[in-house]
Amino acid sequence: MDMPKIVDHTERKTYIAEATWRVIMTQGMKGATVRKIASEAGLSLGALRHYFSTQQELLNFAMNLVKERANARIHAIALSDLPPKEKVVNVLLQLVPTDKTTMAEMEVWFAFTFHRKNGVEQLETLQQHDGFFTEMAGLISYLDQYNLLRKELDHTIESERLYALIDGLALHALLEPERLNSERMIGVLTQHIASICV
Amino acid sequence: MDMPKIVDHTERKTYIAEATWRVIMTQGMKGATVRKIASEAGLSLGALRHYFSTQQELLNFAMNLVKERANARIHAIALSDLPPKEKVVNVLLQLVPTDKTTMAEMEVWFAFTFHRKNGVEQLETLQQHDGFFTEMAGLISYLDQYNLLRKELDHTIESERLYALIDGLALHALLEPERLNSERMIGVLTQHIASICV
Repeated sequence: MDMPKIVDHTERKTYIAEATWRVIMTQGMKGATVRKIASEAGLSLGALRHYFSTQQELLNFAMNLVKERANARIHAIALSDLPPKEKVVNVLLQLVPTDKTTMAEMEVWFAFTFHRKNGVEQLETLQQHDGFFTEMAGLISYLDQYNLLRKELDHTIESERLYALIDGLALHALLEPERLNSERMIGVLTQHIASICV
Repeated sequence: MDMPKIVDHTERKTYIAEATWRVIMTQGMKGATVRKIASEAGLSLGALRHYFSTQQELLNFAMNLVKERANARIHAIALSDLPPKEKVVNVLLQLVPTDKTTMAEMEVWFAFTFHRKNGVEQLETLQQHDGFFTEMAGLISYLDQYNLLRKELDHTIESERLYALIDGLALHALLEPERLNSERMIGVLTQHIASICV
């Protein structure tokens, strides 16, 4: 494979991260060796080491890019002039796999999560990978600020419930896509937000 | 380690399955080789092969045992004389990790799920491992039969929502146990069932 001419350092790192995702998707986390990633990116081992000195550094970068991309999509929606409830549903839809790209991102996210859980990573990685609980609590507060959230609801319980719902949908969309397609995910999320709002 | 004297064939297989779980928990799915499992169980490779002729057969047995044990706990609750709503919450609590044993079972379940997703398993395994969607639909119907389910709710959407909630909670209890303890899981499940009931 020819290496496209990319001069920007960050762009090149992103290009390598995407090669990493492809390797993880086809060969799993254990197949994601520096050698295989270099080969997938069409780079020599030496050239790859110029960007990432360790495998850990490369995997962390690839992982953080998933979160950064989701955050960028969410930021764009937050700035839009959608009504509050629709905005929340649209933000949530950025956290579940609805197309080929987000499906790939989610697969890497879960593969990484379980790889870490199995004790292979260092402790510092653990702290970086704290999931989206805080973001869910932010959405619950947002609905409350617009006086849309039902008054009797406990915010902590609702944040936890929303967070579990999102990651459960993401997991099932990945593992059981024949049943759980995008349309159904939209249906579930719309119903959930309607049920906690006045 | 001395091998305890177990004569029953099924009991011996269960004993080996439990050794398999311990290996998966400490070394991940890729560490779950027949050699390491035999060593953990205090058996020779030959003795282990007497019970399971392939690694695949052993992993399938260990995996199905997780589901069987959950089903046995659920069956006992179904036969109890708890009121319908409490019964449903208690059944759901059998599908999330609330103690050391169920935490271990869940870890094996997820490790196996992702191992399979990464394409290592044969297709026949795939069909056996279909998750708990049907069971969730059964619980929604059960609430409806007792006239407890809100009439306006769509059964398919509610089954999907409950299923995602359960697996999301299981995942988070495993990965973020400092925040999501048993008490909070009970709170979330109780609130969810209350919210879909009259």
